[in-house]
Amino acid sequence: MLQSKLFTKAQKQAPAGEVSLNAQLLIRAGFVHKEMAGVYSYLPLGLRTLNKISDIIRQEMDAAGGQEIFMTVLQDRETWEKTGRWSDEVVDNWFKTELKNGTQLGLGFTHEEAIAKIMKNYVASYKDLPFYAYQIQTKFRNEARAKAGLMRGREFFMKDLYSFSKTKEEHDEFYEKMKEVYMKVFSRLGMGDKTYLTISSGGSFSKYSYEFQTVSKAGEDMIAIIDEEKRIAINKDDLTDEVLKDFAVKVDRDKLREEKSIEVGDIYSLGYKYSEAFNLKYKDESGQDQMVYMGSYGMSPSRLMGAVVELNSDAKGIIWPEAVAPFAVHLISLDQNEKALEIYKQLSQKGVEVLWDDRQIGAGEKFAEADLIGIPNRMVISAKSLTAGGVELKKRDSDQAEILPIEKLLEKFS
Amino acid sequence: MLQSKLFTKAQKQAPAGEVSLNAQLLIRAGFVHKEMAGVYSYLPLGLRTLNKISDIIRQEMDAAGGQEIFMTVLQDRETWEKTGRWSDEVVDNWFKTELKNGTQLGLGFTHEEAIAKIMKNYVASYKDLPFYAYQIQTKFRNEARAKAGLMRGREFFMKDLYSFSKTKEEHDEFYEKMKEVYMKVFSRLGMGDKTYLTISSGGSFSKYSYEFQTVSKAGEDMIAIIDEEKRIAINKDDLTDEVLKDFAVKVDRDKLREEKSIEVGDIYSLGYKYSEAFNLKYKDESGQDQMVYMGSYGMSPSRLMGAVVELNSDAKGIIWPEAVAPFAVHLISLDQNEKALEIYKQLSQKGVEVLWDDRQIGAGEKFAEADLIGIPNRMVISAKSLTAGGVELKKRDSDQAEILPIEKLLEKFS
Repeated sequence: MLQSKLFTKAQKQAPAGEVSLNAQLLIRAGFVHKEMAGVYSYLPLGLRTLNKISDIIRQEMDAAGGQEIFMTVLQDRETWEKTGRWSDEVVDNWFKTELKNGTQLGLGFTHEEAIAKIMKNYVASYKDLPFYAYQIQTKFRNEARAKAGLMRGREFFMKDLYSFSKTKEEHDEFYEKMKEVYMKVFSRLGMGDKTYLTISSGGSFSKYSYEFQTVSKAGEDMIAIIDEEKRIAINKDDLTDEVLKDFAVKVDRDKLREEKSIEVGDIYSLGYKYSEAFNLKYKDESGQDQMVYMGSYGMSPSRLMGAVVELNSDAKGIIWPEAVAPFAVHLISLDQNEKALEIYKQLSQKGVEVLWDDRQIGAGEKFAEADLIGIPNRMVISAKSLTAGGVELKKRDSDQAEILPIEKLLEKFS
Repeated sequence: MLQSKLFTKAQKQAPAGEVSLNAQLLIRAGFVHKEMAGVYSYLPLGLRTLNKISDIIRQEMDAAGGQEIFMTVLQDRETWEKTGRWSDEVVDNWFKTELKNGTQLGLGFTHEEAIAKIMKNYVASYKDLPFYAYQIQTKFRNEARAKAGLMRGREFFMKDLYSFSKTKEEHDEFYEKMKEVYMKVFSRLGMGDKTYLTISSGGSFSKYSYEFQTVSKAGEDMIAIIDEEKRIAINKDDLTDEVLKDFAVKVDRDKLREEKSIEVGDIYSLGYKYSEAFNLKYKDESGQDQMVYMGSYGMSPSRLMGAVVELNSDAKGIIWPEAVAPFAVHLISLDQNEKALEIYKQLSQKGVEVLWDDRQIGAGEKFAEADLIGIPNRMVISAKSLTAGGVELKKRDSDQAEILPIEKLLEKFS
């Protein structure tokens, strides 16, 4: 894409009151626009990155057997009363609205009730199970405070997968698999080495549930690491001697390393809670009615986008990992637009995504904006670079630049 | 995809009270689930088709120079008060909600105000213009009645593009181009020959605006066709002698052919209405402040999905055009799963999207469900077809079947 055509431009400052690093950088670099606290619009660069994150998640959910669907924001009262979750005393972050005729509606903050109700139409026999359905969709939570930028949204993107199994055993097998699938997603996002499978208190159907926590000073959670090698931690809120005993941890509670962390995912065994509420049952092989065993698996692409920024920045701006960068290459031409156009065309033909800064502005401004936007590979073509033998190539996370002949450069990115 | 893994199954009946043909068929075939009137969840087959429609629109918007963004559902009162559109007396289909602190919010039914406000950050000079931004996103309209299935949603998908130009002349050029871009989209969706560029009453900034109307008995509009060759019509609500004179139509008002039609798109010249409300201006080449000239261009992927069904069905079910079918091929095996697996693998390797009905159920049930789902190419492999020399190939919209040797079949789909 030609940067002269991109409507966003770097901004000197983030809006007053925006305290989170991720939102400050993403706003200044033109990735997002803040509509209100916890509510962000995605601009061209931001949507590209968000889509890359979503696509990685989608690929892994598909590989795990997930079938993608898209449920609705508008939720009716009757459905949610079946589990008691309509009440504002039970769920304190509903946004509610109503139809013209006065029928009350809520804006979906999760979809267990909605999907259990849908599946009533499709589950009858043991032959219909197990299966897994997921969506990547906008969710709403009426947070009293929203000061963590993209990491705690009032309106945000969520990937939520729901599993429907015949038995607890069948569920457990998938649940274990999802632990690995989740870690694979975080690895692909470049945060695998900072992310821990984190024990937290379970619900009615399992003693423990699991979160995924990524170590970061920007985190709102605190974890205690119990196994560095296996990458297992405990949410500090749930750290008791009993838990340590259950997981055979021999170290004293007070001696565990503690870290601030960002919750980047959670997986729950729901058991029969929702299937009982909606009478979601199947006939087993002997013709007996059995309740479906459910699980839910959440992960927010927009929160992950915020987390990636928190983990990857310096004083100059964002440093995107290759997998989620809005473009692979930032090509900067300094009065050499003709040669740059050739490189731009050839890289584009090879399928390399290039943002070409073709604008007639100073070199300093171009470099500063490139550092702020944070595309991993910067190519500079100038009279100086051509005299030196080609194009200057510099990684965003390195101070080392090298001059490469144009042919070599094209080879490198193919 | 293996149909045995697909969680949806054909249903005998649509929910009571669902009167529209498109929703009846889409529900029965498992494409969508009705949450409430005008509010549908998209199930695997439905999301595939919706995404194909959205992708066609996206390709054409990108080709026209559009930059994709994603704005928010939650809209603040202050922004919309600037144009007077916050008032429920001015806009009668708002869904409204509020933050914990009592701040009133609305759910976006369109985004002119939101985008004009965003662009305040990015438009300063004539060098920044023109540009075009669009989104494909969920919109909300609190319709008193919603009986047209996917064609009139309370929650629905919208592609809305906004143009920002220096002058009326620059705007007019893009506006004319968009007439062609829109017709190209409808052609790709297989409804080009039934769609008319339709004159309707203009706003403050142009005498006429334009809708795109597709002739269908399911339509809620009525058009009068004034030029069959150039495919131009007038919305009957706006049919006056003056309009006929302006467009040099010599035929009597009463003699024009009238047709029921579905509004599948609309394009507006907004002039300075929103730029004045938000003080969205730029410095021209002589350093003078000028207001930005805006346009907006709407088209709903979900309404189009409903319209495609209204235009393409028979007593047995849906007949998808190739471009938007959830799969290109419906492979049906009757006790020949081994051979079918080979064909499935080979077609998939060639990139052909195949739904393979590998279930152990009767032939009649398989055929009926295939006709209901409406995938354009049906392949049947059975002992009978193999004896006859290969695989039976039948188009959904034809009664003629042919037997093709497997090699020929694979050649045909590559």
